[in-house]
Amino acid sequence: MSSHEFYMDFALSNAQALKGQTDPNPLVGSIIVNNSGIVGIGTHLKAGEPHAEIHALRMAGDRSHGATIYVTLEPCSHFGRTGPCAQAIIDAGIKRVVVATLDPNPLVSGNGVRMLQDADIDVIVGIREEESRKMNEVFNKFIVGKTPFVTLKAASTLDGKIATHSLDSKWITSEEARLDVHLLRSQHMAILVGVGTVIEDDPELTARIPNGRNPLRIVLDSTLRIPLDSKLLTDGIADTWIFTSRNCDSDKRQALEKLGISIFATSHDTQVDVLDVVRTLGEKGISSLFIEGGGTINAAFLENDLIDKVVFYFAPKIVGGKLAPTFIEGTGVDWMKDAIDLRDGEFSKMGKDFKFTGYPEKRGSSI
Amino acid sequence: MSSHEFYMDFALSNAQALKGQTDPNPLVGSIIVNNSGIVGIGTHLKAGEPHAEIHALRMAGDRSHGATIYVTLEPCSHFGRTGPCAQAIIDAGIKRVVVATLDPNPLVSGNGVRMLQDADIDVIVGIREEESRKMNEVFNKFIVGKTPFVTLKAASTLDGKIATHSLDSKWITSEEARLDVHLLRSQHMAILVGVGTVIEDDPELTARIPNGRNPLRIVLDSTLRIPLDSKLLTDGIADTWIFTSRNCDSDKRQALEKLGISIFATSHDTQVDVLDVVRTLGEKGISSLFIEGGGTINAAFLENDLIDKVVFYFAPKIVGGKLAPTFIEGTGVDWMKDAIDLRDGEFSKMGKDFKFTGYPEKRGSSI
Repeated sequence: MSSHEFYMDFALSNAQALKGQTDPNPLVGSIIVNNSGIVGIGTHLKAGEPHAEIHALRMAGDRSHGATIYVTLEPCSHFGRTGPCAQAIIDAGIKRVVVATLDPNPLVSGNGVRMLQDADIDVIVGIREEESRKMNEVFNKFIVGKTPFVTLKAASTLDGKIATHSLDSKWITSEEARLDVHLLRSQHMAILVGVGTVIEDDPELTARIPNGRNPLRIVLDSTLRIPLDSKLLTDGIADTWIFTSRNCDSDKRQALEKLGISIFATSHDTQVDVLDVVRTLGEKGISSLFIEGGGTINAAFLENDLIDKVVFYFAPKIVGGKLAPTFIEGTGVDWMKDAIDLRDGEFSKMGKDFKFTGYPEKRGSSI
Repeated sequence: MSSHEFYMDFALSNAQALKGQTDPNPLVGSIIVNNSGIVGIGTHLKAGEPHAEIHALRMAGDRSHGATIYVTLEPCSHFGRTGPCAQAIIDAGIKRVVVATLDPNPLVSGNGVRMLQDADIDVIVGIREEESRKMNEVFNKFIVGKTPFVTLKAASTLDGKIATHSLDSKWITSEEARLDVHLLRSQHMAILVGVGTVIEDDPELTARIPNGRNPLRIVLDSTLRIPLDSKLLTDGIADTWIFTSRNCDSDKRQALEKLGISIFATSHDTQVDVLDVVRTLGEKGISSLFIEGGGTINAAFLENDLIDKVVFYFAPKIVGGKLAPTFIEGTGVDWMKDAIDLRDGEFSKMGKDFKFTGYPEKRGSSI
């Protein structure tokens, strides 16, 4: 590992620690190094506050002169809330800029680097590029297409069951895995379930971790069966939106709206159109969606090519049962060769359980 | 790691390399060390041939005098084909014996150590005990109960399916995983499938690896539906035994017996009794059984507490489908809390796929 990777890793780990706090901005970290060592450390904390480079330049002060700055994302060239970072870097007398990855927004990508190069600054791009892109996978998608990055979560036994044949499901995974789910919830802007889950479990869908941000709660409910005394409708902890079908019950709709619940009728007459759901959420500025549905909802999103990432928790146990529900149902593909491949799959240990993350291959949908 | 662990690891890795070749004997390795270093290396090669300690003592010759011998299994004290190894160790003037684990056979366990201690030899027991026991898990079970060690193998998509809803199953896993299955086949004395697999796939169930030993092939077939021209019945590559029900078709039975196939009628009138199968195989000297059934057969063995180990290959892909078959079917348990726990579960990478091994918790069956 060269010193470039060493300093970029430091900048990445600083940025990563802010996960969930910078939305809708990306995670960015920056380090300034001169002959005597590290002289500046900066991390973007929150939308509306200074970018990472500005914090690092302030800490370094005069020592920025002739130094090298590491940034996990291309310095901006536009006059936003804080002025262009590329100009601040030039003004500080920085000699060399090392960038992990270019700006994902095709409208501005490369502009920051050009501004620096035009000022005769030496620029290196691509150190820890993949790591930086993965860290901002949500932002990178949303900034380009204005639709949310969608993560599908499931927790099952090792034989793929999310309940026994008698539909008992408590509990499949251990405390550690359930805590990890709460962490992931807090890192998403919205969480989505089916009305069946609401009727059976009456969940709160909150992030029960210290300082955990509670995401917007979304229920798919084609006929508005949701009980009016559900915690999601009454607890006031976070907003709840319901997506339904065009021909939903208008009396129930009014009753729900009286409770302050937003109702969205999708374009299908009797079902919830999941493409509409994702498009609408994007228009409303929701950049990340966490799906905790059952096998039917999970299959609907997967079949419509809407899942960007999967997180599956597997408990090392077996329940068996031809009729026990699995976590991806629907019709499924007809041929094994048409199975949906999961790229970059990884297993890790999570307490007694195992956590899999992977990325479904996209098949060319519009989202 | 002390030098004891270092030398015992060497002995273990020598023993492990013989996997599949020593049946019905256990895998055993031995190292002799004196002040100048390693002076003897021995590994048990084949039933009827010298034990590991004898090979090591022969290599060491006079240098055994005053040396330390490492053995992965307690030296024997009985007069078998080769005389008691404990006596040979005493006669060679060995000063210290380091043993990984005692003999698993309760009738003789500890006798070898006592014989050595009675001759004033220093004996240490328990260095890499768990590793040695795991290496001989098949032998250790069979020597005590005379029933085979049963390994359940399955290959599924990550969502637990072994075929699509239209029953297409080719191929789920990659070449590497399928090669690993062939290796495991060659390390078992018998392989078991259901007649459904024979009818659909007409498999050979051989171990297609260099020098691979082809296991005995066992088919469960309650009504003797197996086609008379199946490869298992006609290819002559390895023996095939069929287990059926008491009321099986006697004409078909005669036709099969004419082909040289052994037929075993289990005690159930219309189904194959899996407890009978395992008991019978034990009586016939089959110490290891590899099950490659579908969801129904797998569930029958699991529900009857007959599985000692599971090996599951997961391809990182999703087929979905409420009606797609999973690898453990049957009725399944009623409550999640009654799920069968898998001890010592581990995932490893196998080409593009993932391999899980674990040990189902036994619930106190008689086998």
